[in-house]
Amino acid sequence: MHLFDYLDSGNGFKVRLLLAQLGQDYRWTHVDIDKGETRTPEFLRKNPNGRIPTLELDDGTYLFESNAILWYLAEGSRFVPATQLGRAQVLQWMFFEQYSHEPYVATPRYICRHFPADHPRRAELPVRLEKGQAALKVMDEHLATRQFFVNDRYSIADIALYAYTHVAPDGGLSLEPYPHVRAWIARIAALPAYIELLALPKGATNPAAAA
Amino acid sequence: MHLFDYLDSGNGFKVRLLLAQLGQDYRWTHVDIDKGETRTPEFLRKNPNGRIPTLELDDGTYLFESNAILWYLAEGSRFVPATQLGRAQVLQWMFFEQYSHEPYVATPRYICRHFPADHPRRAELPVRLEKGQAALKVMDEHLATRQFFVNDRYSIADIALYAYTHVAPDGGLSLEPYPHVRAWIARIAALPAYIELLALPKGATNPAAAA
Repeated sequence: MHLFDYLDSGNGFKVRLLLAQLGQDYRWTHVDIDKGETRTPEFLRKNPNGRIPTLELDDGTYLFESNAILWYLAEGSRFVPATQLGRAQVLQWMFFEQYSHEPYVATPRYICRHFPADHPRRAELPVRLEKGQAALKVMDEHLATRQFFVNDRYSIADIALYAYTHVAPDGGLSLEPYPHVRAWIARIAALPAYIELLALPKGATNPAAAA
Repeated sequence: MHLFDYLDSGNGFKVRLLLAQLGQDYRWTHVDIDKGETRTPEFLRKNPNGRIPTLELDDGTYLFESNAILWYLAEGSRFVPATQLGRAQVLQWMFFEQYSHEPYVATPRYICRHFPADHPRRAELPVRLEKGQAALKVMDEHLATRQFFVNDRYSIADIALYAYTHVAPDGGLSLEPYPHVRAWIARIAALPAYIELLALPKGATNPAAAA
């Protein structure tokens, strides 16, 4: 398998973390989103929506959308529940992540890390951060009585939500008011085969990544 | 099963359409999002994220996120592919729908139908419609060589994308430039057990729905 990715992307990190915990080898190529490398005709042939992560399978198929890639890699493994309801609940939290969390937890981090203090996109921050707080509150209340999101077992729902939550302060979103979220982050960071968001994948040979 | 829903919601319509095509009976209760009925303490105990559709299962579990509900209802049926790759591709398009399509195709429709012409939220329309056009372009190019989104068979990926696409013009998003999308819409509307978005579910007895 061949992962097209951007090292600082939480969406890409979801896939890297799962692959590390599955013990699966893969090729890794850095695609520089800031240089428009996801919008070239060549890249759009891989993913017509022009985004990373995009995973090339061994048969040449390209799969995109980070949470769909997680599902593909994890189906049938210990990272996906064995029951119909458990699987639907994992997807429930993964759709929550993409709709109610990512735009308000991840995007502020992107804005803060990629645009100067006087950039017009900074004007988006107050509304986004308010909705980010609402998403973290939903998570904190759910985790008040649970170790992990579904069936008290670590799953790809946790991976999907962890990716941007654990670096939310990079975007100005404090985790201080959410003790259950912080305890859950500590549990995940202590799991076997855990990797850091900015850890370069083993064997990554792309010059842009090594730079 | 008991569906908590808002009749004009495309996200709710996804679930109603699938239930109709599965031939499954259910209770249906109208929840008026405009009157804040999804933000009451009582409703937040059903769905802590305060949104419809929310499905109460026979064991009393509440499931939320429209696309996760579709998965729960359709898993193992003809509406979900039998292969690992097919299932992941169905989810790929469902995550595309929630992240790159719904906020830009559904939200303009909501703004146009719920806020007067001089309302400040109308200012969001130009940016949202531009991204809506980008999503429709991705769909149109994909459908240029296909009858349906995955494996040329109607699936819950089509249901998820159809719900707001077929009423996109309500939000000021013309389908004129997307002939393959229009042909796909016509194919879906001609399927057995098709229902209209605003068709009141059979046996709906809630006074708000009947009003």
